[in-house]
Amino acid sequence: MNKINDRAAMIEAAAAKMGKKTFVDDLKKVGTPRLEYQKTCSKVVTLEEAIRQSGLKDGMTISFHHHFRGGDKVVNMVVAKLAEMGFKNLHIAASSLQDVHKPLIEHIRNGVVNRLSTSGLRGELANEISHGLMDEPVVFRSHGDRASAIKRGDLHIDVAFLGASSCDPLGNAAGYSRSENPKSICGSLGYALPDAEYADKVVIITDDLVDYPNTPNSISEHKVDFVVEVESVGDSSKIASGAIRDTKNPRDILLAQQAAKVIINSGYFKDGFSIQTGSGGASLAAVKFIRESMIEKGIKANYALGGITAHMVKMHEEGLIKRLIDVQSFDKVAAESVKNNEFHKEVSASEYAAADEQGSATHYLDIVILSALEVDVDFNVNVLVGSDGIIRGAIGGHPDTAADSALSIIVCPLLRGRIPCVVDKVTTLITPGATVDVVVTEYGIAVNPRRPEVAERLRAAGLKIVDLNDLKERAEKIIGQPAELPFGEKVVGVVMYRDNTVLDVIRNIQG
Amino acid sequence: MNKINDRAAMIEAAAAKMGKKTFVDDLKKVGTPRLEYQKTCSKVVTLEEAIRQSGLKDGMTISFHHHFRGGDKVVNMVVAKLAEMGFKNLHIAASSLQDVHKPLIEHIRNGVVNRLSTSGLRGELANEISHGLMDEPVVFRSHGDRASAIKRGDLHIDVAFLGASSCDPLGNAAGYSRSENPKSICGSLGYALPDAEYADKVVIITDDLVDYPNTPNSISEHKVDFVVEVESVGDSSKIASGAIRDTKNPRDILLAQQAAKVIINSGYFKDGFSIQTGSGGASLAAVKFIRESMIEKGIKANYALGGITAHMVKMHEEGLIKRLIDVQSFDKVAAESVKNNEFHKEVSASEYAAADEQGSATHYLDIVILSALEVDVDFNVNVLVGSDGIIRGAIGGHPDTAADSALSIIVCPLLRGRIPCVVDKVTTLITPGATVDVVVTEYGIAVNPRRPEVAERLRAAGLKIVDLNDLKERAEKIIGQPAELPFGEKVVGVVMYRDNTVLDVIRNIQG
Repeated sequence: MNKINDRAAMIEAAAAKMGKKTFVDDLKKVGTPRLEYQKTCSKVVTLEEAIRQSGLKDGMTISFHHHFRGGDKVVNMVVAKLAEMGFKNLHIAASSLQDVHKPLIEHIRNGVVNRLSTSGLRGELANEISHGLMDEPVVFRSHGDRASAIKRGDLHIDVAFLGASSCDPLGNAAGYSRSENPKSICGSLGYALPDAEYADKVVIITDDLVDYPNTPNSISEHKVDFVVEVESVGDSSKIASGAIRDTKNPRDILLAQQAAKVIINSGYFKDGFSIQTGSGGASLAAVKFIRESMIEKGIKANYALGGITAHMVKMHEEGLIKRLIDVQSFDKVAAESVKNNEFHKEVSASEYAAADEQGSATHYLDIVILSALEVDVDFNVNVLVGSDGIIRGAIGGHPDTAADSALSIIVCPLLRGRIPCVVDKVTTLITPGATVDVVVTEYGIAVNPRRPEVAERLRAAGLKIVDLNDLKERAEKIIGQPAELPFGEKVVGVVMYRDNTVLDVIRNIQG
Repeated sequence: MNKINDRAAMIEAAAAKMGKKTFVDDLKKVGTPRLEYQKTCSKVVTLEEAIRQSGLKDGMTISFHHHFRGGDKVVNMVVAKLAEMGFKNLHIAASSLQDVHKPLIEHIRNGVVNRLSTSGLRGELANEISHGLMDEPVVFRSHGDRASAIKRGDLHIDVAFLGASSCDPLGNAAGYSRSENPKSICGSLGYALPDAEYADKVVIITDDLVDYPNTPNSISEHKVDFVVEVESVGDSSKIASGAIRDTKNPRDILLAQQAAKVIINSGYFKDGFSIQTGSGGASLAAVKFIRESMIEKGIKANYALGGITAHMVKMHEEGLIKRLIDVQSFDKVAAESVKNNEFHKEVSASEYAAADEQGSATHYLDIVILSALEVDVDFNVNVLVGSDGIIRGAIGGHPDTAADSALSIIVCPLLRGRIPCVVDKVTTLITPGATVDVVVTEYGIAVNPRRPEVAERLRAAGLKIVDLNDLKERAEKIIGQPAELPFGEKVVGVVMYRDNTVLDVIRNIQG
């Protein structure tokens, strides 16, 4: 008896010293088998319950990813529910917003949403915002900068609402599905991963609730608070739409061929090189045109980064590209491949392009091919605001990859219809000229004076090197000096650079 | 001119409002190709540099994983370097410690190390500690509880030193390797993942430094501060040693067969069931004996958890087990499988067994088979301290899986030589009796009175159901009443339960 008391006393003393309590034996073994447990103890709730239980309050920040691009159904669904529940003054921090998010206009008008952070805006929503819809300017960040801002706490997310193509009742989620007939797949969930890691509460929204364990997966239950089952999270057929559609435009194909020649002769086309192609028909197509040269010269790429497309998947399967590093699957072939191929690796936006991340993939990138709405004579690039002053694009990883790659190539026609693309000064500065090496147009190739060795190599290969000033003048000769834009005095957008500084502002457009 | 000033002023104003600076265009494009960049800009440093740059100070907490088990070389290497550098009063928070860590005795004597947290201790180090080597008691936690304590901040890790079988210069690390001749592989790095996630600084130590990108991987560069290349991190041939050796002992095989009969007749042997086998020959072997019955009855397991062995890999490849969830690969076959098989999923210790993690895999576990050093008449189990009072084991996931599973089965011989295994009161309490359902001995099967329905099913199947009190008396009849242990008054170990309370203390042993 004394012995037992001694032991109990020693346990008490040890616990007190550690500031802990002692164990109380009130355990009751349940003995419920897994399949029954799954029904009674899961994270599955309705959207309304998830919102209530998340502790979301007026004025807080909610986040979304854009992996379904034009097919996304999550943003509209969640914000409609929030409106119905009477929320006000919410801040939407999306990785990007598309045409499909037009219903946000009404939610902004009604005060449900009063701030936006995004990589891009398109369609009617962009148009309304350009005309001064919001009191607060939209904050535009690159994909890498968004990840950094989230990690740093600069962009604090209260509740993340993340669409997933499959999820089990505990929250193991993916952008693909092992079900026989998955409803919606989007592949990599790369842009959603910083949200899953750092948001205070994480809600997975899925249209394919599968049995535990949903492995492999990309978001762990460890990070998930609620799971909501809905009819549909997105339309997969619309992933490869808009800016990432496969091009049939002859001018885009010409530009892609020229870009391929630049790559091949740049000095960076060596065994073990790495490459990314940004959105835009010409840049996506360029990789097709280096394939033959790779086979001929026995050159293999170490990795392709992106923005992974069916072309890249094919070249990987042929052994021409060793690894695919995928922050966003640009089509359904890529979305399937990220599920099936172990060397097709899904990465988060921070692993992809964060400037303050020593190991982000962009830091190791040799070649990137990017598109542009405008390039100016100082090699500055605009991919966000049209020459009419209206927002119609997205920053994406443009400034991240341009700055970090060994060679950044911009493909850009001289004119789009009556709109000049090579201009005196970009309407909005997105990618500083110091980070742009080569501009490929259908009238010749301009090389940044900072990179004379690249110009020399291209010249030696017989490529036509031109001056951006001459291109600009050529454009002006054809269509005349562009009229000044009727900007107002209201700041409707702030463009952040990837070092967390303010790079530019976007003013409201009048009329 | 005025226009430009306006724009600059608006940028200034927008930045000021946001509390940000404005962009300064001092960017200088480097243009270094990836392969050269890899040489000049990586996280690779010497061990000494990693330690210095980590900011480690006397009195801080360092951590290690035990995936190489008896073959581990990292702990001794790092602590020897820390001793050489003059560090004092360090706290080692290892996921477990083995015989091979005997050199820690000297480091404890010399004041380099003054606190230990671990799941287990074995060999000479355990013996010395049991005899009072340390001033501070060792804190023992289960694998699930360690993960919870790390996440909660209760076990704050200043610097984690994590051995990896492959790593690129940026820190993408794995317990396997794609190199032609990998030096050391250990498979899952599950116990290292909470450390990688929550430690202030993370040092990867590898003997296979590969080109970026080392994909797929289990630890992301995103979490890694330094990479250290060494000659060898571990001896893979010693992974399947000690407590997880494949048994040839006839009594273990008998126990395994009996455990298989319990499983088959328990009511939990249904299509879609899940199973884990803990360390110890008999429990590991049990899965072999349910295989035939699974084939015969057309039953497939939904997942096997653990502690994955070659047997489980084989049954997975045969289609009998749908998913493998692997926190620790118990042999080289499993270590290779986690690399090659997409349905063999590596999980962190929190995803495995954290009590406060709604979605940890143990919560969904139907059946677990565990071993024991001692079981007492109240179904309490001891797996840590020998009947001689000397520490000689590890908590592992024992209390986690016993508590969370629908059916926990302990396999335990009545006697080991002259040592009784069924006793009146366990020397040290590790797994409370309320969480133990069945005890299988070679003299019959005891069922916890809390689970009469299980006893009924086993009886109906013709299995011999016995009372633990009768077994205890039977043991006493053979070898007599065990002598009282010569415990002293010093607390050498504190056993935590998975709810963060103090469960028991271990006293020093005299003589």
